[in-house]
Amino acid sequence: MSFLHLKSSKKLQNLAKSAPNLSELSLLTPERIEKMAIESLSWKMMYATECVSLEIENALVELAEETFALKKMASMQAMEVMNYVNNCESENRSVGHTALRALTTPKGASKPLLQAIQASQKEMEKLVRFLPKVEKFTSMIVVGIGGSYLGTKAVSEALEAYKTSKRQLYFASNIDPDKIYTILEKVDLAKTLVVIVSKSGGTLEIAAQEEVLRKRYQERNLDVKHHFVMITGEKSPMDTPSEFLETFYLWDYVGGRYSVSSMVGAVPISFLLGLPLWKEFLRGLHDMDLHALEEKNPKKNLPLWGALLGIWNRNFLERSTFAIVPYSQGMHAWTEHLQQLFMESNGKSVAQSDGSFVNWQTSPVLWGTVGTEGQHSYYQAIHQGTQVIPVEFIGFRKAQVSKDEDISGTTNQEKLLANLFAQSLALAKGQHVSNNNRFFSGSRANHILFADHLDAYTLGNLLAYHEHYVAFQGFIWGINSFDQEGVQLGKRLANDFLEVMKGSSHAVKDESLVKAFLSVLKKKQKK
Amino acid sequence: MSFLHLKSSKKLQNLAKSAPNLSELSLLTPERIEKMAIESLSWKMMYATECVSLEIENALVELAEETFALKKMASMQAMEVMNYVNNCESENRSVGHTALRALTTPKGASKPLLQAIQASQKEMEKLVRFLPKVEKFTSMIVVGIGGSYLGTKAVSEALEAYKTSKRQLYFASNIDPDKIYTILEKVDLAKTLVVIVSKSGGTLEIAAQEEVLRKRYQERNLDVKHHFVMITGEKSPMDTPSEFLETFYLWDYVGGRYSVSSMVGAVPISFLLGLPLWKEFLRGLHDMDLHALEEKNPKKNLPLWGALLGIWNRNFLERSTFAIVPYSQGMHAWTEHLQQLFMESNGKSVAQSDGSFVNWQTSPVLWGTVGTEGQHSYYQAIHQGTQVIPVEFIGFRKAQVSKDEDISGTTNQEKLLANLFAQSLALAKGQHVSNNNRFFSGSRANHILFADHLDAYTLGNLLAYHEHYVAFQGFIWGINSFDQEGVQLGKRLANDFLEVMKGSSHAVKDESLVKAFLSVLKKKQKK
Repeated sequence: MSFLHLKSSKKLQNLAKSAPNLSELSLLTPERIEKMAIESLSWKMMYATECVSLEIENALVELAEETFALKKMASMQAMEVMNYVNNCESENRSVGHTALRALTTPKGASKPLLQAIQASQKEMEKLVRFLPKVEKFTSMIVVGIGGSYLGTKAVSEALEAYKTSKRQLYFASNIDPDKIYTILEKVDLAKTLVVIVSKSGGTLEIAAQEEVLRKRYQERNLDVKHHFVMITGEKSPMDTPSEFLETFYLWDYVGGRYSVSSMVGAVPISFLLGLPLWKEFLRGLHDMDLHALEEKNPKKNLPLWGALLGIWNRNFLERSTFAIVPYSQGMHAWTEHLQQLFMESNGKSVAQSDGSFVNWQTSPVLWGTVGTEGQHSYYQAIHQGTQVIPVEFIGFRKAQVSKDEDISGTTNQEKLLANLFAQSLALAKGQHVSNNNRFFSGSRANHILFADHLDAYTLGNLLAYHEHYVAFQGFIWGINSFDQEGVQLGKRLANDFLEVMKGSSHAVKDESLVKAFLSVLKKKQKK
Repeated sequence: MSFLHLKSSKKLQNLAKSAPNLSELSLLTPERIEKMAIESLSWKMMYATECVSLEIENALVELAEETFALKKMASMQAMEVMNYVNNCESENRSVGHTALRALTTPKGASKPLLQAIQASQKEMEKLVRFLPKVEKFTSMIVVGIGGSYLGTKAVSEALEAYKTSKRQLYFASNIDPDKIYTILEKVDLAKTLVVIVSKSGGTLEIAAQEEVLRKRYQERNLDVKHHFVMITGEKSPMDTPSEFLETFYLWDYVGGRYSVSSMVGAVPISFLLGLPLWKEFLRGLHDMDLHALEEKNPKKNLPLWGALLGIWNRNFLERSTFAIVPYSQGMHAWTEHLQQLFMESNGKSVAQSDGSFVNWQTSPVLWGTVGTEGQHSYYQAIHQGTQVIPVEFIGFRKAQVSKDEDISGTTNQEKLLANLFAQSLALAKGQHVSNNNRFFSGSRANHILFADHLDAYTLGNLLAYHEHYVAFQGFIWGINSFDQEGVQLGKRLANDFLEVMKGSSHAVKDESLVKAFLSVLKKKQKK
């Protein structure tokens, strides 16, 4: 059934016509603030500053029930086929990223789940044997794009404060030659490992980067076989273990954007930060997986509740974007990873149930940078712009570093937190004054997520929170969050441009258009 | 008059009802692609892939005329008072960032303009004397937030390929203590300059960071006076030249987000990359200033034409976001600077002419990362999501580095360009197939900006393009792009939180709400 025709959806459409206005004096009370807070594991969410009432909350709970959100989460985690679109040729397979961190085998596990857990444990054992062998290396270059690096980058940088070695991690993530040559200037190849990530083993950009690196090693008379590590699908064209120091496997049931808990994240992060930290991170992920699965009350299920509040803002209050702002410098790459997670998963227009085009909105544009930096940048528009931008603030009670000092009566970490809370309150409450230029409408939806401390376990909790937030939204919207057909057309056309650039005789579908673009490109500027 | 009641605006509202659909076979032709390209200075814009017809283009030209966009640009550059809102107390002053790079004094220059040019030249002379004095330093820490660092970071990183020294630049841009302690681990204070940027001389975060650094220098028995450089307003509380190695000045007619061409950018960038490069950058800015001022045909005035296409997408096709994607790794910080430039300038709701609330949309949410990285991330949503996201692609014919190699018949730079053009074409043309999951609607607006090579002059051109793009949009929307009242409420409330945290007896307006937030913060998690 269409999302818009659900009973709860109709209720919500009505309720949206008179959504609570938080700038009204009587509404945003201390009681509301203290009451509207839920917690799970290491995280707490304060959502008194979302534009919801008890009636709206109840209708959101109904929406989760009507769309079988929790049931679908159970199917996903049991590795039933969830990556499909009816009436369309599609990938048609199960989704298995939660199996990567299943620390124990659940009772009554399905056969595919059992197999996935065993396969994952086998790679983990390989990693345990691999790490001692590479102790002499000081740098690692990860060659990967999109999901093969965004998550690893976000997690490794957020936890870099726990680094005990001098090791460095570099990401050759862009085909832009300026990127790889900058890295090559910084590393000593003799002490550098190269990790190549390509599930299909056939990505053009990856092959090109590998080739550049291979040449450099050969020029220095270094044996690639002692330096290159491969992460790929079993039986892919790059599954040629004899050519590599080690080959780790990925499976088609782990999408790139969900792959950080596979060897894609494990190899670089355990190299940089050690295996105990990596295991702690997995434990954090796994605990949130279980919470998402087992907490049957949507108002207490953190990722499900976050997803529902997001849908309220997206579909009923018609907010087209969503800003996520961590008040933590270490998390500056987090939102970039989430952009892929949210927008590649749910930037879709086709109903899973019958392959028809949806007539409701799906993923908002996900964006944001770290606080307090954003405050001195785009917050002007968040407070006084013509469109309302819902915000998720993320913060920590304590700083990552142990050092901090008292300046005019408060520490820097306290100043950071004061800013975070102040923004949440300012957006909700507004400021109604007679000078219109200093008028703040208020009632701008936001919520706060916070934890004690940014460590591996807490970050694992958070990553799984965001992964399941996205999965729940996909379940509720009735779309397939696990494929990415939208990237194919650009790939095909890029190859067409390359064929024409090379002057090849290969037939190209839109040859006259391609040539017109290239003719403008080639014309010399007047100046 | 209201933007919506302009004659041209009404025309455009009508035209939007039957906007051209670029996925129709007959529309996107080689002729259209070759014809719809304009150039100025080092840049070319291809806009055949925007959803416009000749009739729409003509109405956009009328819109520029009806709103006196070019006349307002002239007023701004002549330093008439343009930062004001009628009927509201406001900053009420002129806007002078173009004076900072006026290499010669224009004929018939107004008195404020003459004074601003002279003041700027005086600082430039100071810089010329200063640089030889700091030759022995190898690192610089810039303490600044928002406009005091985003532009400097974007420009210095984009041009870092031209660095000839081993010097390093660090930005202490966040109050988060994790940030500054990470920097302190990397530098040798004896060889490090600290540049403090604070126009008002009273920003809490800056003072706190300065204090931390001051202590570290004192602990090492280093004289702060030989290491600290101040950039501030004349007569600000921090205008105490005897305490600093050098003090450079800023003026109230240069807003933070427009300050990169002042000493805020000049001191760090010329320290890192040399004075000749800095001068070349200024020349690039100045030439684009003159182009924006003197090209009276809106269809040939690059920033004005960009602004008009943006307004077509924003106000008439109702696109709420705008993605800017440079296909150049060096420009990875560019969009973050533009977020401030766009959203702090035009995230406004008040009409400049009478202080009333506007009933039309202003700044879109500006976001994006570099290509090709984005292709493997959020492009799914750009191609197949339910909302259309206009895109500005930025690219270069040649790579910054001279090295590049041929792999399967094309260089990496060619592969990068092929990808950029392919995306533009894919978005416009779409792919109408029977499998809905592989269906691309097409007609998704975008344009391409490209130049030969990312160097100082070209980047100067581009920065001024974006600055004037924003100014023209503000002029056309009839809002004040030069103040930022929207950041004040959060600042005030942050101080309230700090007072309560300290347990001070200072009266706090929303004390019960502040205390409720803090009480939730303090409660221990169950787990």
